[in-house]
Amino acid sequence: MADIELRSDNAAGVAPHVLEAVAAANHGSALAYGDDPVTADLEATVRRVFEHPGARVFPVTSGTAANALALSALCPPWGSVLSHETAHILNSEGGATSMLGAGAVMRGVGGDDFKISPGALVATLDSVRWGDPHHSQPSVLSLTQATDMGTIYSVAEVAELASIARDRNLRVHLDGARVANAIAALGCSPADLTWRAGVDALSLGATKNGALSAEAIVVFDEAPAAELVYRTKRAGHVTSKMRFQSAQLIAYLSDDRWLHTAAHANARMAQLAAGLASLGVVFVNRPVANMLFAEVDDAVATKLESAGLLFYRIGPGVIRMVTSWQTTPDEIDAALAAFADALT
Amino acid sequence: MADIELRSDNAAGVAPHVLEAVAAANHGSALAYGDDPVTADLEATVRRVFEHPGARVFPVTSGTAANALALSALCPPWGSVLSHETAHILNSEGGATSMLGAGAVMRGVGGDDFKISPGALVATLDSVRWGDPHHSQPSVLSLTQATDMGTIYSVAEVAELASIARDRNLRVHLDGARVANAIAALGCSPADLTWRAGVDALSLGATKNGALSAEAIVVFDEAPAAELVYRTKRAGHVTSKMRFQSAQLIAYLSDDRWLHTAAHANARMAQLAAGLASLGVVFVNRPVANMLFAEVDDAVATKLESAGLLFYRIGPGVIRMVTSWQTTPDEIDAALAAFADALT
Amino acid sequence: MADIELRSDNAAGVAPHVLEAVAAANHGSALAYGDDPVTADLEATVRRVFEHPGARVFPVTSGTAANALALSALCPPWGSVLSHETAHILNSEGGATSMLGAGAVMRGVGGDDFKISPGALVATLDSVRWGDPHHSQPSVLSLTQATDMGTIYSVAEVAELASIARDRNLRVHLDGARVANAIAALGCSPADLTWRAGVDALSLGATKNGALSAEAIVVFDEAPAAELVYRTKRAGHVTSKMRFQSAQLIAYLSDDRWLHTAAHANARMAQLAAGLASLGVVFVNRPVANMLFAEVDDAVATKLESAGLLFYRIGPGVIRMVTSWQTTPDEIDAALAAFADALT
Amino acid sequence: MADIELRSDNAAGVAPHVLEAVAAANHGSALAYGDDPVTADLEATVRRVFEHPGARVFPVTSGTAANALALSALCPPWGSVLSHETAHILNSEGGATSMLGAGAVMRGVGGDDFKISPGALVATLDSVRWGDPHHSQPSVLSLTQATDMGTIYSVAEVAELASIARDRNLRVHLDGARVANAIAALGCSPADLTWRAGVDALSLGATKNGALSAEAIVVFDEAPAAELVYRTKRAGHVTSKMRFQSAQLIAYLSDDRWLHTAAHANARMAQLAAGLASLGVVFVNRPVANMLFAEVDDAVATKLESAGLLFYRIGPGVIRMVTSWQTTPDEIDAALAAFADALT
Repeated sequence: MADIELRSDNAAGVAPHVLEAVAAANHGSALAYGDDPVTADLEATVRRVFEHPGARVFPVTSGTAANALALSALCPPWGSVLSHETAHILNSEGGATSMLGAGAVMRGVGGDDFKISPGALVATLDSVRWGDPHHSQPSVLSLTQATDMGTIYSVAEVAELASIARDRNLRVHLDGARVANAIAALGCSPADLTWRAGVDALSLGATKNGALSAEAIVVFDEAPAAELVYRTKRAGHVTSKMRFQSAQLIAYLSDDRWLHTAAHANARMAQLAAGLASLGVVFVNRPVANMLFAEVDDAVATKLESAGLLFYRIGPGVIRMVTSWQTTPDEIDAALAAFADALT
Repeated sequence: MADIELRSDNAAGVAPHVLEAVAAANHGSALAYGDDPVTADLEATVRRVFEHPGARVFPVTSGTAANALALSALCPPWGSVLSHETAHILNSEGGATSMLGAGAVMRGVGGDDFKISPGALVATLDSVRWGDPHHSQPSVLSLTQATDMGTIYSVAEVAELASIARDRNLRVHLDGARVANAIAALGCSPADLTWRAGVDALSLGATKNGALSAEAIVVFDEAPAAELVYRTKRAGHVTSKMRFQSAQLIAYLSDDRWLHTAAHANARMAQLAAGLASLGVVFVNRPVANMLFAEVDDAVATKLESAGLLFYRIGPGVIRMVTSWQTTPDEIDAALAAFADALT
Repeated sequence: MADIELRSDNAAGVAPHVLEAVAAANHGSALAYGDDPVTADLEATVRRVFEHPGARVFPVTSGTAANALALSALCPPWGSVLSHETAHILNSEGGATSMLGAGAVMRGVGGDDFKISPGALVATLDSVRWGDPHHSQPSVLSLTQATDMGTIYSVAEVAELASIARDRNLRVHLDGARVANAIAALGCSPADLTWRAGVDALSLGATKNGALSAEAIVVFDEAPAAELVYRTKRAGHVTSKMRFQSAQLIAYLSDDRWLHTAAHANARMAQLAAGLASLGVVFVNRPVANMLFAEVDDAVATKLESAGLLFYRIGPGVIRMVTSWQTTPDEIDAALAAFADALT
Repeated sequence: MADIELRSDNAAGVAPHVLEAVAAANHGSALAYGDDPVTADLEATVRRVFEHPGARVFPVTSGTAANALALSALCPPWGSVLSHETAHILNSEGGATSMLGAGAVMRGVGGDDFKISPGALVATLDSVRWGDPHHSQPSVLSLTQATDMGTIYSVAEVAELASIARDRNLRVHLDGARVANAIAALGCSPADLTWRAGVDALSLGATKNGALSAEAIVVFDEAPAAELVYRTKRAGHVTSKMRFQSAQLIAYLSDDRWLHTAAHANARMAQLAAGLASLGVVFVNRPVANMLFAEVDDAVATKLESAGLLFYRIGPGVIRMVTSWQTTPDEIDAALAAFADALT
C-alpha cells in the first residue's frame, strides 16, 4: 500500500488551479513589489469575497509572517496579545510576535474545547492594572480559527469574544491558517465570520489548503494597513515578483475554490472520524474541521505506521491526523481498514 | 511597437526551467518547513556549486530577507555593518537590518566606481574607538556584488577588502542580489568570489535572474548558520511548502543555468552600451553587468518613453536601464533605434 | 498617630550611611561612565563580598534594568526565560525582558510556596522540542529570591534547580531585588547562594534596602559580562557620574550593612507576623523575609487604613504588608494594636 | 599644582544645592515610581520654567536614555532620525536610538559650524521617496543644542529648521545635554528656544551641569508623552525612589540655578578662549558655550599634561577643553599660564 499522508495539510501539494494561475501570470513584464495589475486585482478580489470596500490585503509567504506582522501593527510594543493557551502564535512560532512586535508579550487564556471562553477572557481583562506601565496592557485578542486542535468558534462565539475585547479597546485578530476549513464547516460568509463579527485583521491561510507559497494579511482598518506597508517591507515580506503571489491568491479565492478544497478536506475528516468512532476510537477533540486528535495505544500506532499511515504522535497514547484538499476517499477507506486491522 | 522593459530585472518573468521544476516537484506529499528531500538536494547542490562541503543554505523569499537575516546573524546588536554609501542595504531596505539586527546600525563607506575602496575602509576602521560602548563597533563588511550601480568588484578586490576587514575581526557578507551577473562577467568560480576570498555569508539572488520567488542565504561558517535556523523561522521566512522554493533554486543553479541567464542579461547590456556609446551617450557607471546609468536629457527621455521604452528616471538628466534574462537582441536593437530617433 | 508605612520597602528613604557615602564621594573630579576609582573599588568590593575573583559588576538604576539587561545577555533572542508564574519579570516589568532581549519570551513555571518546584521545572523542560525553531528554546532559569510573595528558596533548592537547568544548558539568573533579605534570613554566604549554587548572574537589589538610586548586575561569567559592556550603554544605563552610584553600592555592601538592614526588616516582619498570628490572622504566604500577605476582611482593612496603617489591598480579602530597614519596633507595636482594635 | 579638570563637564561633581535637595527629600516615606509629591512638584516646576501648561516630564538617569527614549516615542520603527553628522545620537550612543526605536535608523545631515543648515536639510528631505517603504521615512529632526562641538543654534535657526521639518510632518527633538549652556549664552527663555520654536520634545541635561544622576525628557505633546509612560518603564528608566531624582531636578531648575551654573561654565570658557586667542592659539570651533576645540601641537599638549592640565586629545594636533559649573577663575588663569609656558 502506498503511504497515506495524514501528518499535516502542509504536506500536501499545490492544487492544479493554483499552479495554472502562476503559469498564466508568467507573460510580459510587470513592476515589482506589488505595483502590478495582478496585485491590484487581488485587492479587488478580497474586497468582493469579504464584502468590504476598504479591505486591504498584504501577500506574505508564511503563516508566521502573516500573524506576527498583523499583530505588530495591532499591538503597541508595551501591549500583550491574548490567545488561547494552545494557540500557534503562543507555542509554535518561535516568539515571532515578540520579535516583530518590538517586545510585545503573549499571554495564554483558558477555555474548554481549545477555545477561549468568555468567562476566562473577562477574568483576564478584569485582573489587569490598566494604565500601569509595570503591567503589559492587553491590546489584541487573537482567535485561532480553526484552532490548532481542530475545533471551531461559531460566528456568535467570535462576535461575543470580540465584543468583550473591543469594550476594553482591544483590537481583534483572527489566525486563519485554516480559516477556509472553518468557514466551510460553519457555512457562513467570510464577512460574517470576520469584520461583521468585530475582527480587525485576519491571517488568511492559503498554503495548507492548496496554494504554493502564499498567505495574506487582510485588514479592515486603515491605521494598521498604513503601518503594514512599511512593516511587511522591512521584514522582507514584500516579494519582488509579487504578481505570482497575487495570482495564487486570486485563483485560490475565486469561484469559492478555497471553500471547496477546504470542504473536501473536512469531508474526508468526517469520513475518517465516523469510521473511527464506529471502531470505538476515543477522540481528544471534536473533529469538526480537518484535524483529529485521537487516543491510540502506542502499540497500535506502531502497527498503523507499518501499514503505511503517516501521522504524528503527539504524546503517549495520542496521535494527530490531518486531512487535506488532496486526501482521497479511497485513502480514508484504506486508513480505516488499517485501523480495523491494528485494533483487533 | 510593444513596450521594451528596461526598468528592472525584477520586472521580468519566470524562466521556463524554473517554472517546470516547480511543477515537477508537485507530486506526492512531503514534510513542511524544509524537512523534505528536495531541500536536502538543494543543500547538496549548493555545496557542489560553491565547492564547499560545509556550506549551509537557507531559502527565503526576498533579497531584503536574505540580507537582513544574514547580517543579523553576523553582527551583534551593538555592532555596525559597513557598506558602500550607495548600497541597497543602507538605502533601500527600509531599515530591515537595524530591525532584524536588534538595533544594529549601518554606516556608509566611500570609494570610486560605487565600490568601497581599501583606503576608505582602512580610514573608517582606523577612526573607531574599539571596545568603547559609546561607539557602534564595526562588525560586518557587506559588499554589494554587482553593486546597485552595476559595477563589479574583481575577485582580488573582494579578497583585499575582506582581508582588511578580517584583520579587525569583522565578518564579510556579500549582497549577491545580482551575484550571478558578477560571476558571469568575471568568469570566475562561485568559490573564488566568495569563501576563498574571505566571504562568510552570501545573499544569493535568484528572483531577478529567473526564479519565481526564491532567494537564499548561503553560509560558510557554522556559528551564523546555527543562528539562522532560528532567525529565519521567527522572521516568518521558513515557508511551509519549502520544497517548492528549493526546487526553484536547484533548477536555477544546476547546469550553470544561473550563469547562462546572467550572461545573457550582461550580453544584452553590452549590446545596448556599445550602441549608446556610438550614439555619444555619456554613462554614469561602467556597465559591466546588466545595469546602465546614462546621462539623458529629460526631453529625450520623454521621447524614449513615447516610443515605448520603459526605464527609470533617477534624477534630472539621468536614467537607469536594466537588462534581464528575458531581454532579446531585437528589443535592444529597437531600443537603440528609439535612442537614435530621440537624439536627433 | 502618624502613618505607618507598610506598603512597600520601595517607599522607605535612603539609609544614612548611603547618603553620607554619596556626599563623601563629591570631591575633585573623575572621569565619567565608570572610568573612575570609586567604580574600580566597587568591583573589588563585589569580588570580596561574593568571594569570586572574576565577578563583574554593572551599576544600573532600577531593578527592571538589572533583570532585563542581565537576561538579555544570558538568553538568545529565540530563547525563553523560565520563571515562576508569580515572578516580577513575568508580570510586573512591562515586557522589559522581551524588549531588551530582542523578542525573547518569558514562560511561567509552577510550584508551591510561590517557588518553582523541581518537578515542574523538569516537566517543562521535558516538554520542549529542543532544536526545533518553531518553539522558543528555554535558555535561562530565573529565580526570584526572595520571591514576590516573600518566600525564600533554600541554598539547596537553588542548587537543585540550577543543576536541573544547567544539565539542559540553561543559564541561571537570580532576581535579587530582595536578595539581602533572603541571605539574612538564610544565614548563608552570598557566594553559597549564588555562584557556588550554580548562578551565572544576579540582579543585586539595593534601593529597597537603603540605597538612593542604585541596583547592580553581578556576573560570574565572562561572556555575558563582555556583552553587558555594550548592552548597558545602549540601554542608557551607564550613568555619566557613575562614581556616585558606585559609592552607594560600596557603602551598602561594606561591613555587611546590606545584611544588617535586611535583617532588621526581616525582624520587624517576624515581630508583625508573630503578633498577627496570635490575633488569629491567616497568612497567604510564609513570611520568612519582609513581606506578608494576609487574609483580612475588607471592612477590617478599612478600619486599619483609618488608623493610619499604609498597606496594599491585593484582592478581595487579601492585603500585603512589607517592612523595611526603616520600620521601627514601635511602629510594629502600633500596627498590632491597630489590628487588635480592628479585629474586635 | 593641582590638576585642572578640563576633560569634560561630566567629570565635575555635584552642585551643593542639588546634594542638599536630595538630603532634604529624605524624610518620611513616599510611593515609588513617581507617585510621590516631589515628582508632582517637578512637573509643576517644569511647566512654570517652560511656560507650558501641558508639558510633561520624565526623569531618567542618562542622556542616552533621554535621547533614545524620546526619539523612540517620536519616530516610527520604519522612520529615520535626522541629525547633524557630528551629533552625539549618531556617533556616541552605541546605536541606542535604533535599539529602543525598534530598528529606526539615523541619518547625518551636513552644515557648517557643526550645525544642520537649512539648505542641507531641504536637500535631504527633497531626496526622499516619501511613502515608499523601501526607504526609511524621515520622521524626526534632532538638533543638538549646544552641539557636540560647542556651537549653538540661535532661536531663529531652531525655528527655521523646525519649520522646514514640520512642513514635511517631521517631529522636532532637541538633544539638550548642554541646553542650559545654550540658553545662558543666548539669553533667551526656555520656551522661546523650545516649543515656541517648534520643538516637540527635549532631552533636558542636568548631570553635566551640577546634578547627581538626573536627566529628564520634557515633552510638549500628549501623544509621545502617553507612550513614554510605558517606554520609560520597560527600558528600566522609572526609578523606584524617583522622588530623589525629582528633588535634584527641582533644585536644579528653581531660581534659574541651572542657568547660573551654565553661565558660570560659559564665562570660564570665555575667559579661557580670550586668553588663548591672545596667545595665538587657533580654534576649530567657535567656543560660544563651554567647549573649545583648539589646534595644539602634540608636543605642546604633552607639556600641558605635565603641567597638570586635564583635557582630551581628539586627533593629531587637536585638543578638547570643557569648563563646568565647578571650574574656577583661578584654574583658568593657571591653565593659561601653563599654555603660555608650553607655547614658548
